[in-house]
Amino acid sequence: MRPSGRALDQMRDIFIDTDVTMHAEGSCMIRCGNTHVLCTASLEERVPPFLRNTGQGWVTAEYGMLPRATTTRMRREATTGKQSGRTQEIQRLIGRSLRAGIDRNALGERQITIDCDVIQADGGTRCASITGGWVALRLAINKLMKAGDIVTDPIIDHVAAVSCGIYAGQSILDLDYPEDSEAGTDGNFVMTGDGQMIELQASAEGATFSKDQFGELMALADKGVAELVAAQKAATA
Amino acid sequence: MRPSGRALDQMRDIFIDTDVTMHAEGSCMIRCGNTHVLCTASLEERVPPFLRNTGQGWVTAEYGMLPRATTTRMRREATTGKQSGRTQEIQRLIGRSLRAGIDRNALGERQITIDCDVIQADGGTRCASITGGWVALRLAINKLMKAGDIVTDPIIDHVAAVSCGIYAGQSILDLDYPEDSEAGTDGNFVMTGDGQMIELQASAEGATFSKDQFGELMALADKGVAELVAAQKAATA
Amino acid sequence: MRPSGRALDQMRDIFIDTDVTMHAEGSCMIRCGNTHVLCTASLEERVPPFLRNTGQGWVTAEYGMLPRATTTRMRREATTGKQSGRTQEIQRLIGRSLRAGIDRNALGERQITIDCDVIQADGGTRCASITGGWVALRLAINKLMKAGDIVTDPIIDHVAAVSCGIYAGQSILDLDYPEDSEAGTDGNFVMTGDGQMIELQASAEGATFSKDQFGELMALADKGVAELVAAQKAATA
Amino acid sequence: MRPSGRALDQMRDIFIDTDVTMHAEGSCMIRCGNTHVLCTASLEERVPPFLRNTGQGWVTAEYGMLPRATTTRMRREATTGKQSGRTQEIQRLIGRSLRAGIDRNALGERQITIDCDVIQADGGTRCASITGGWVALRLAINKLMKAGDIVTDPIIDHVAAVSCGIYAGQSILDLDYPEDSEAGTDGNFVMTGDGQMIELQASAEGATFSKDQFGELMALADKGVAELVAAQKAATA
Amino acid sequence: MRPSGRALDQMRDIFIDTDVTMHAEGSCMIRCGNTHVLCTASLEERVPPFLRNTGQGWVTAEYGMLPRATTTRMRREATTGKQSGRTQEIQRLIGRSLRAGIDRNALGERQITIDCDVIQADGGTRCASITGGWVALRLAINKLMKAGDIVTDPIIDHVAAVSCGIYAGQSILDLDYPEDSEAGTDGNFVMTGDGQMIELQASAEGATFSKDQFGELMALADKGVAELVAAQKAATA
Amino acid sequence: MRPSGRALDQMRDIFIDTDVTMHAEGSCMIRCGNTHVLCTASLEERVPPFLRNTGQGWVTAEYGMLPRATTTRMRREATTGKQSGRTQEIQRLIGRSLRAGIDRNALGERQITIDCDVIQADGGTRCASITGGWVALRLAINKLMKAGDIVTDPIIDHVAAVSCGIYAGQSILDLDYPEDSEAGTDGNFVMTGDGQMIELQASAEGATFSKDQFGELMALADKGVAELVAAQKAATA
Repeated sequence: MRPSGRALDQMRDIFIDTDVTMHAEGSCMIRCGNTHVLCTASLEERVPPFLRNTGQGWVTAEYGMLPRATTTRMRREATTGKQSGRTQEIQRLIGRSLRAGIDRNALGERQITIDCDVIQADGGTRCASITGGWVALRLAINKLMKAGDIVTDPIIDHVAAVSCGIYAGQSILDLDYPEDSEAGTDGNFVMTGDGQMIELQASAEGATFSKDQFGELMALADKGVAELVAAQKAATA
Repeated sequence: MRPSGRALDQMRDIFIDTDVTMHAEGSCMIRCGNTHVLCTASLEERVPPFLRNTGQGWVTAEYGMLPRATTTRMRREATTGKQSGRTQEIQRLIGRSLRAGIDRNALGERQITIDCDVIQADGGTRCASITGGWVALRLAINKLMKAGDIVTDPIIDHVAAVSCGIYAGQSILDLDYPEDSEAGTDGNFVMTGDGQMIELQASAEGATFSKDQFGELMALADKGVAELVAAQKAATA
Repeated sequence: MRPSGRALDQMRDIFIDTDVTMHAEGSCMIRCGNTHVLCTASLEERVPPFLRNTGQGWVTAEYGMLPRATTTRMRREATTGKQSGRTQEIQRLIGRSLRAGIDRNALGERQITIDCDVIQADGGTRCASITGGWVALRLAINKLMKAGDIVTDPIIDHVAAVSCGIYAGQSILDLDYPEDSEAGTDGNFVMTGDGQMIELQASAEGATFSKDQFGELMALADKGVAELVAAQKAATA
Repeated sequence: MRPSGRALDQMRDIFIDTDVTMHAEGSCMIRCGNTHVLCTASLEERVPPFLRNTGQGWVTAEYGMLPRATTTRMRREATTGKQSGRTQEIQRLIGRSLRAGIDRNALGERQITIDCDVIQADGGTRCASITGGWVALRLAINKLMKAGDIVTDPIIDHVAAVSCGIYAGQSILDLDYPEDSEAGTDGNFVMTGDGQMIELQASAEGATFSKDQFGELMALADKGVAELVAAQKAATA
Repeated sequence: MRPSGRALDQMRDIFIDTDVTMHAEGSCMIRCGNTHVLCTASLEERVPPFLRNTGQGWVTAEYGMLPRATTTRMRREATTGKQSGRTQEIQRLIGRSLRAGIDRNALGERQITIDCDVIQADGGTRCASITGGWVALRLAINKLMKAGDIVTDPIIDHVAAVSCGIYAGQSILDLDYPEDSEAGTDGNFVMTGDGQMIELQASAEGATFSKDQFGELMALADKGVAELVAAQKAATA
Repeated sequence: MRPSGRALDQMRDIFIDTDVTMHAEGSCMIRCGNTHVLCTASLEERVPPFLRNTGQGWVTAEYGMLPRATTTRMRREATTGKQSGRTQEIQRLIGRSLRAGIDRNALGERQITIDCDVIQADGGTRCASITGGWVALRLAINKLMKAGDIVTDPIIDHVAAVSCGIYAGQSILDLDYPEDSEAGTDGNFVMTGDGQMIELQASAEGATFSKDQFGELMALADKGVAELVAAQKAATA
């Protein structure tokens, strides 16, 4: 019944390759089906002005799409002269989500920038960016700890995200692009490794939704995030 | 226990004055406590390119803040040369929310732009914009129907929004700025007049939240939106 | 003979409501007929670089229009990415005019920014901004003096402005929008409370004008500014 | 008593060389003392959208300064990414002034753009631009008339401009940069060949001015513009 | 003697993987040592305005770098608001080079955009972009020919590029980043499959160079381009 | 056979007038036939951040064209909001070229900015800018040496540039605009006074070129640069 042929609660195959680029302090290529995102973590020994001399660190994120990551070529944001509202909304979400899983005092006064660049898009790029971004962050912090620059692990828990939606009246997990573009309701769920909520977003596109339907989406998200966290563990073991 | 001295489930006083500006097809000044937003509806007999010759109309929104709507003066976005990510995120939310309450075929091939300009800010400006924006939209459509330009009322239901959050471990309704800046979790709930969901957003700032806590926020939102819808009805009667 | 039905030398009704916003150090809503401008004064304990360590203060101004302040909706300058030439010309005029009425040594090394935001436009917005901007400035300085931060009053005199023009061959005072859009000559006169000139601007739109005609406009401006100054006195008494 | 050693009512030497660039339809280099402005007129057989199918033409102007036209090098506006408020204010003034001297119906549906580029600056660049811009416009129209593209001369009268100001308490004519930077009041007077007014601007910088003082400035402007018009006649004879 | 340990006339290993992204009409990942560039060809059935109704097609290119393609993270051009001069210079070079190898009449009135996005940088990114861009172009045209949309092959010859330079007084082939940053002279040579020149650029950084030295660089370029063309042939066979 | 009627190896007439503007530390107007470029050198006693406290100076360049320097009026870059790729490419070339002829240690920690503004264009503007820019630089340094601010002459050698190309199958020297727009190959050669190379650029537009043809262009360039250096010597003697 799903265009993808998957069961209602079935995730796409997840692959996370780590250390895929030679310069970044941490990196991975995450592939959720045909959605491929390159996530890098860049360390800087400085923080934004509002954190100077506080002893606290910062994690921030930027998001981009290659022009031909999509079915039809999109104009490069560097030529339009600004990031779109959608891009800014997504990168603010990634940054907030990853910061929720970190102890910024333990990180110390340094900044880690997570770049999430979509190489190929087939729905769910913001969720893949959060899940892969956490892996890049984990690897960069591992390096800092190994070098003795950080003593206490600043990572509190895993952070991963999955989309759920209502498609043809049914609640489904991990929408690909054809499913997403037809879904009546579309939601993103960012959660921790122990099932706490970091961020929920659900939006009706066409038909509104009820509290019961939202409950179904949350249950699916629980299942999906558990699988993503398992993949993160396997990749960073 | 709340800085505002209100009960946990108590809204701020709501005032909606209509027809407050001579040029707009519909307008109101909504005041939710000390948050004051001027909402205007502007009608144009044209639609965005992707809707031409479809017979469907469009509702869109823009959001702005006067420089001294806030405690300290903010730089005018016209001088920084672009709208911030926050501004774009908010105006996209307002537009999506109001479109969910309208039958775009019944509206016909015309566009209504809702401008929400914050005259004074004390928390909850995006929710006040949605609630007041619906009133401006309602009034503009009333005018079109009175003139016979639209036969079937394109408005399906009321659309209103309220914020809820977790403050000092307690779930509270309709956060003002001092409450919002200290809340561990902050959410916005956009709903219809009959209690269906249009958009949910909840975000942990510091501490994560559980499914039970989120359930409490939804119950508070139900109560708040019902009061806002009553105020909309009184204003547009 | 005037579209507004007013006598040739008759001003529109003037209302100045003060302290209309909770955050600004000084504020007023000035209404000259249907032209309504919200003026706020924001105090900062810093000055532009060229004044550092000079002991002198600065007064500057910014001007904006809400998108639907006008008959047809105007595009928001924050979305076009820059302030128009007209906006910049007006805000430079407001700033120059208000600085002419102030002793910058007595003000001390601090900056006051006057924001003039047009809520509803019907001609004469720059003049209303200057007249109302002076009230906001006066109130902010009163607060500084009351707090003992300033000892000597830095305000030398009132500053107010009115437009005059030649309409259907007749010199008229205080043009509203329908009169302004048809006037052959249009001028703005910024003056002090004792009738000295700060800034004159007169521009032929279509027909040129003679020295005699310009003399008539100046006489009208004398009358108009006297009435505006009286309104300022009443509002700040 | 003037830094320049000139009499109070003495203009700088004026030179207008015509046809100084091979591509423009009309051009001149105007030199008012050490202020040198290259003025070109460019003809296009199209008009701005608001004039299409009206049979009326348009004259517009742009203004620029070479980076080292001034005592210290100024940043190039092409690198700052926008024209300054000052630049826009000046080019709007040049355009308005030249349009006041032209019959746009006789011009027909075509646009002439006057570019005024300051090669060397020593005060009075906007006045030199208007005076020289008129010469470039006159020459371009001569060419159109010679070719038979225009039958009736659309030029109604000469347009020229001069600055006057109050320096050390005395009214003086045609301020150079050292005089301008010290003047208490500075004004620009745009007039026609028969002494009618097109635009007046006078601004107090420091001290305010009286009606009598303004009368003195106007009398000086009469003298100065007459000399400029004579130079225009000699150059275009 | 080279930091890379290579012989003076030794290229880095070249790998070209084709069809690496699902959406583009043609694509490859080219790896020249540690320099990795993703090249995609996007087909549009429209041409720039200056080619409409000429029957001729167009090939253009855009170039970008992921923020952490480099040793230290570079600011994303989408956030700086514009492409740097370096980026524009490179993408203009890629476009010119690829157009030189194509018969635009045989291509017909359609545009192919080559996007070259540097995933990892270690010197020579512009040359890798040209060499890989040609492969993406070849594949996209193959698809058009297979579909019967183009009858005559518009590709005239291979286009490939290599850098040569003078390092420690010796002429070397295919500089990596450590070599490039120390080279006294650095040149890029764009050539066809049969050894004709398309574009030469050589620039002294520090010491100037003689005609003899330039002759040595050209001879090295001949060798390098021949190897690159062989790799192109193998990849597109 | 050339549109200009010149012999294949014949330069246009060269005139270099020095000290043409009163404010710049060095200046010239260079005229190569109908191509006229105003070159000014501006001295600043500061260097870019990467050179602070190194004892080394910097030479940089900016390039601009007046809107009507060309056959049809070009849009002013200050109004488009950015410098074009072509402009940036040219000014980077001018800066690199002039730096190659200077000992930056002998210059000391100061910056000289060369502005090259094209007053009239007829092909070869970048070459004229380099040749004239060197004269402005020479004059500014002469002034520094005369004042005793610099002891050792930092100028190592002359820097001059000329274009060569293949027109109708023949190699020609110093292309004007009609020749340039029809040439199959177009190259720019920047050289020192003793015939060493600083920068070579040659680009096929349409037909590719062979090594032999490139050799012919280099021989022509030798002749042309020698004549330009002679003109520089005459102008700065």
